[in-house]
Amino acid sequence: MEFNFPSKVLFRAIESFNSLPGVGKKTALRYTLNLLKMEPDEIMRFADNIKRLAVDIRFCEQCHNISDQKICDICSNSSRKQDVICVVQDVRDVLAIENTQQYNGLYHVLGGVISPIDGIGPSDLNVESLEERVKSQNVQEIILALSTTMEGDTTNFYLYRKLGNFPVQISTIARGMGFGDEIEYTDELTLGRSIINRIPYKGGNK
Amino acid sequence: MEFNFPSKVLFRAIESFNSLPGVGKKTALRYTLNLLKMEPDEIMRFADNIKRLAVDIRFCEQCHNISDQKICDICSNSSRKQDVICVVQDVRDVLAIENTQQYNGLYHVLGGVISPIDGIGPSDLNVESLEERVKSQNVQEIILALSTTMEGDTTNFYLYRKLGNFPVQISTIARGMGFGDEIEYTDELTLGRSIINRIPYKGGNK
Repeated sequence: MEFNFPSKVLFRAIESFNSLPGVGKKTALRYTLNLLKMEPDEIMRFADNIKRLAVDIRFCEQCHNISDQKICDICSNSSRKQDVICVVQDVRDVLAIENTQQYNGLYHVLGGVISPIDGIGPSDLNVESLEERVKSQNVQEIILALSTTMEGDTTNFYLYRKLGNFPVQISTIARGMGFGDEIEYTDELTLGRSIINRIPYKGGNK
Repeated sequence: MEFNFPSKVLFRAIESFNSLPGVGKKTALRYTLNLLKMEPDEIMRFADNIKRLAVDIRFCEQCHNISDQKICDICSNSSRKQDVICVVQDVRDVLAIENTQQYNGLYHVLGGVISPIDGIGPSDLNVESLEERVKSQNVQEIILALSTTMEGDTTNFYLYRKLGNFPVQISTIARGMGFGDEIEYTDELTLGRSIINRIPYKGGNK
């Protein structure tokens, strides 16, 4: 099914939105018509904000996080612990962890996880630069915060083997029941691990 | 809940997407990160396609449809019937009807329907220019293709009163059961109208 568009300009804008993940022709049309209701100034600002993604965005040379500068705001923030590195899969995870306000160290964005099926090996990830950081900087702890999938676990294991010889503590984030989960509906693997990795109760809800 | 964005450029792009209807912070982030995976050229083209909405898009002076030129492709297409005008609520409806490939006349985009609750009266719609077209051009038929809502019906009635004195046939699109609908689950109003407006059976599925 193809729409006949009354205008090439309209068509191309719709096509652009259509190229985003999960945006079909109808949604792209809705976005475009909605833009058309805005003031020209606003549309120009929208376009400019996107253009600047191409021009101004770069990745931090140390942790590979998105940044405006060579070194990102997190890496260059001297009030953060410089000797703890949290290893994550991608930029979204940095945002998610930052959002918890429970972490005050640095990050290292791998850019993916090892996945032989998808043809992604260690050399496709930012592993070498992580090793370099552990070697050259005074890193005390590496926190592996990858997804609890087969690929995540494989990557965890690989990194553990790679970095285990350095004088650095390696930990993974805790796996267990989430807040609000019910015992009855928790899968047995998670529940089993929750029991094995039980923590001393201190009278609080943490 | 607020994300701490590592880059103002990123933040502004996310904000822009966030201003679209039905796009929350998380979806806006997903769109933006996806754009960042594209080649700079592609991002620039995306931005340019949006910029051109502000610069190049105008509305047809005759039918108020979206157009690149003063008069849209449909109005200026001489192979279309110039004496039939289909009145619709907005540009999306033009696309939907064009898509059926069952109509070969012209359009008139009202820009809305009469809705006292929302403070939209006839003067807020492109009614005057429709009257002008009926007066000055050799229009044989007006097809009212508005939504089957209270507001749509009100607008139908208003236009009928306004244009009824001109030597022009006024029709509304058929209301009835949709293809694939089951009698049992059709609301009584629609079913009732379907019976009243029954059409002679010609042995086909039309």
